[in-house]
Amino acid sequence: MAKRRRGNGNNGTSNGASGIKKTKTENGSIPSGKKQLHLTAFMRPVSLHTGAWRYPGAYADANFNLAHLKSFIRKLESAKFDAFFMADHLAVLNMPVEALKRSHTTTSFEPFTLLSALSQVTEKIGLAATASTTYDEPYHIARRFASLDHLSNGRAAWNIVTTGNPESAKNFGQDEHMQHSDRYKRAREFYDVVTGLWDSFADDAFIRDQKSGIFLDPEKMHTLNHKGDELQVKGPLNIARPVQGWPVIVQAGQSEPGRQLAAETAEAVFCSPKDLESAKSLYADIKERAEKAGRDRNHLKILPAVLIIIGDTAEEAQAKRLKLDSLVHYDSAISSLSIALGADASGFDPDAPLPTDLPETNASKSSRVGVLKLAEDEKLTVRQLAGRYGGYAGLAFVGTTESIANEMGRWLDEGGCDGFTVTLPFLPAGLDDVAEKLVPELQRRGIFRLDYEGTTLRDHLGLPRPQNQFFAKT
Amino acid sequence: MAKRRRGNGNNGTSNGASGIKKTKTENGSIPSGKKQLHLTAFMRPVSLHTGAWRYPGAYADANFNLAHLKSFIRKLESAKFDAFFMADHLAVLNMPVEALKRSHTTTSFEPFTLLSALSQVTEKIGLAATASTTYDEPYHIARRFASLDHLSNGRAAWNIVTTGNPESAKNFGQDEHMQHSDRYKRAREFYDVVTGLWDSFADDAFIRDQKSGIFLDPEKMHTLNHKGDELQVKGPLNIARPVQGWPVIVQAGQSEPGRQLAAETAEAVFCSPKDLESAKSLYADIKERAEKAGRDRNHLKILPAVLIIIGDTAEEAQAKRLKLDSLVHYDSAISSLSIALGADASGFDPDAPLPTDLPETNASKSSRVGVLKLAEDEKLTVRQLAGRYGGYAGLAFVGTTESIANEMGRWLDEGGCDGFTVTLPFLPAGLDDVAEKLVPELQRRGIFRLDYEGTTLRDHLGLPRPQNQFFAKT
Ligand SMILES: Cc1cc2nc3c(=O)[nH]c(=O)nc-3n(C[C@H](O)[C@H](O)[C@H](O)COP(=O)(O)O)c2cc1C
Ligand SMILES: Cc1cc2nc3c(=O)[nH]c(=O)nc-3n(C[C@H](O)[C@H](O)[C@H](O)COP(=O)(O)O)c2cc1C
Repeated sequence: MAKRRRGNGNNGTSNGASGIKKTKTENGSIPSGKKQLHLTAFMRPVSLHTGAWRYPGAYADANFNLAHLKSFIRKLESAKFDAFFMADHLAVLNMPVEALKRSHTTTSFEPFTLLSALSQVTEKIGLAATASTTYDEPYHIARRFASLDHLSNGRAAWNIVTTGNPESAKNFGQDEHMQHSDRYKRAREFYDVVTGLWDSFADDAFIRDQKSGIFLDPEKMHTLNHKGDELQVKGPLNIARPVQGWPVIVQAGQSEPGRQLAAETAEAVFCSPKDLESAKSLYADIKERAEKAGRDRNHLKILPAVLIIIGDTAEEAQAKRLKLDSLVHYDSAISSLSIALGADASGFDPDAPLPTDLPETNASKSSRVGVLKLAEDEKLTVRQLAGRYGGYAGLAFVGTTESIANEMGRWLDEGGCDGFTVTLPFLPAGLDDVAEKLVPELQRRGIFRLDYEGTTLRDHLGLPRPQNQFFAKT
Repeated sequence: MAKRRRGNGNNGTSNGASGIKKTKTENGSIPSGKKQLHLTAFMRPVSLHTGAWRYPGAYADANFNLAHLKSFIRKLESAKFDAFFMADHLAVLNMPVEALKRSHTTTSFEPFTLLSALSQVTEKIGLAATASTTYDEPYHIARRFASLDHLSNGRAAWNIVTTGNPESAKNFGQDEHMQHSDRYKRAREFYDVVTGLWDSFADDAFIRDQKSGIFLDPEKMHTLNHKGDELQVKGPLNIARPVQGWPVIVQAGQSEPGRQLAAETAEAVFCSPKDLESAKSLYADIKERAEKAGRDRNHLKILPAVLIIIGDTAEEAQAKRLKLDSLVHYDSAISSLSIALGADASGFDPDAPLPTDLPETNASKSSRVGVLKLAEDEKLTVRQLAGRYGGYAGLAFVGTTESIANEMGRWLDEGGCDGFTVTLPFLPAGLDDVAEKLVPELQRRGIFRLDYEGTTLRDHLGLPRPQNQFFAKT
């Protein structure tokens, strides 16, 4: 099959497309010409931290309570976030029963149904759903995203995943999870089929002339007739072309084929670098691959995931984090620490520092080095370290609004990212802090929008609207 | 696999369960003790009549305009309809290009996304989505309906279809449509799997005790481990048990295996008898089969599809229908008439009655007899007959509110139905007539509710809430 390429869009906002804000806003106090941050919120689960639901004042059922989710998305919209992002999994995650019974994420809404509902209580914020190319059909996926895009007036995004959790296979009639390389091969072809189906109708195919009785122009309907190695799909899709042309394509693969898929297809990349150095190299690598694939590097936004905890002082923020980590049950926490250390930590004195005479190990050296550095830097006891690894051990910005805004600006300036995928420590307070304290600070510094300038998610992200690959613009 | 049986529910509204209204309403003028009608509205497409979008004053884009759909569902809710029902198809229907370009149903929203959106602009009306057992996976279907049921607070229904349109196969990697009997075999097993997955968690599985840190009781989670002829699905589902226990099960199969599936599984049956006589025999047959399968006959509601056209006089209603039929293009209309007659009608004088010397045919006698009777009864020209067959030739009640209310009452009294699946002639006027004229008349007669008495679709239909098959009620 011929490799299709996205047309050069012509409806993109030109200021956003380069990532540089060129227009002065009405509020003259905002310095122009600064590179702009993009912010999406990681909202399924509403917090990745396993202790989140137990934090004082937190909604224990935040992940599965529609009224709460409505208030969260409205808050994010009032803070002008680019998008609300739902991760997704096709199984109850396989964990020991001791962890399972403490997990606040076992029950969640399904992304398409939840985002469609939320589309009706919001007006501008983007709605990103995760959907698997391994355990679903391109006709269904194309149709649902097209429908969500129409219902939301152009706010849908598709996070393409190949599904990492091997347990999923057993829920879909398969004994074995498909091999990693096969999953990515299928994903690449799946993307071609879905985008081909979105282009089934020209934007102006529907005439609806009551007088003549002509509803649509059949010359403006394309039958895909895809016959590939993995997929055979005839088409056309039974829904008009999405408002955005194509919903925004998101990708979060980290492996070699994952990065390559992102470079060829993604318009936003969710990733999880552990620090600015690794973020910069990932950023450079993916942007370079995108250019090699013939794409504009500005049409691909890199948005590392970061946990944000805000305090009035650095000490207060750090105390919140220690409190949160302490809410992870010791049994599951200590086993996470053991894995990170590559040594059984269950016999250590919980309230003392790490013993200096750690047993030798064959496990990953870099992971152990990380634990030792963390223990040293933050002077943590075994119990506190365990809480960190059992809670959330990924990238975190913990501090005052000023220090976090500094850090975000630095990542943006130094080529570590185009924005962030914000993950929250606990709800609603952790979200309120981001929306009411951090965002205004970013706005004051002129690196985040004061208001939405367009209506679609493509507008927010500064991405062009793809041309229909089968029909020239008329 | 052991055959599962629905538990005797204990949350059903007892007045509804027998179909007899026992309680007096607050408004004392309503005679009690009368059997009650159930009304669902067929809303995808919003009109089945192919000329609907051209009717004077009709919204040409009614089928694919969210603002209109919101106003329609709110109107139906104000008229206390049981449910809003979306049919569904997994392909652009295969029709000649002359018909295709005049079809107002080529572009439609996808059911789960649309109904989830509509759940947020309504409070009581049921939301019935069609989903195929032939071209989807039980884990996805179970999950989406569970999610819709939670988002809507217990208003979801699943219309189980095996998908009749063979074109669908080609959109799902298959050359051939699965055989009819295989489709129904798979559907029956699919139902067992989906209902089994809905019961993955006991209703009281989620504890969420912030103090102890116990979120759920793992003893109250069931792993299905289904291994059948057609399907292997492990479970558990990653969402809490639906609000209704199980969303309401709907079925519309007409064949022998279709009726049997309905009798064993359905709680509402959509059907399309052509008159009261055939409705009665269908009604008796399905209720009998349900009893043979060990079920309560009152827990299965039979709701024939009927087109409703209302006029201030019988003549006005008939004129509306002729006007509507006249909006079907003659080319497609005449070919529909030819099929019904089993003879090429394209050479007949359009504006004369049917010729008396029709050519002999091998085609269905009963269909030709029907055409002749219709031509005779309504004194129709060839053009008018063609418009009828090209427009909508199914069951129709055309007349004044009084005559239609009489007819509906008669069907209910004589055992032809438990209510109707209302299809509309054109929108919005045809819907407004039903909501503002017909429903009040049915209410005056005491055969339709003045207000919703419960909150879930099961409440409206008088159906019990199924017990969890794996966990006793605590
Ligand atoms: C921020 C972020 C969000 C992710 N969300 C999902 C998700 O919702 N569902 C999923 O199956 N995988 C998710 N992943 C996993 C990735 O899709 C991918 O499988 C993982 O990063 C491993 O990379 P690989 O697939 O290239 O080996 C996510 C990853 C990141 C960094
Ligand atoms: C009121 C009504 C609505 C229906 N809706 C659908 C639908 O949305 N999608 C579909 O594939 N079939 C639909 N059907 C078709 C039935 O599911 C069924 O395939 C058809 O009645 C033929 O019966 P059989 O499948 O038992 O042969 C509908 C039928 C009726 C009477």
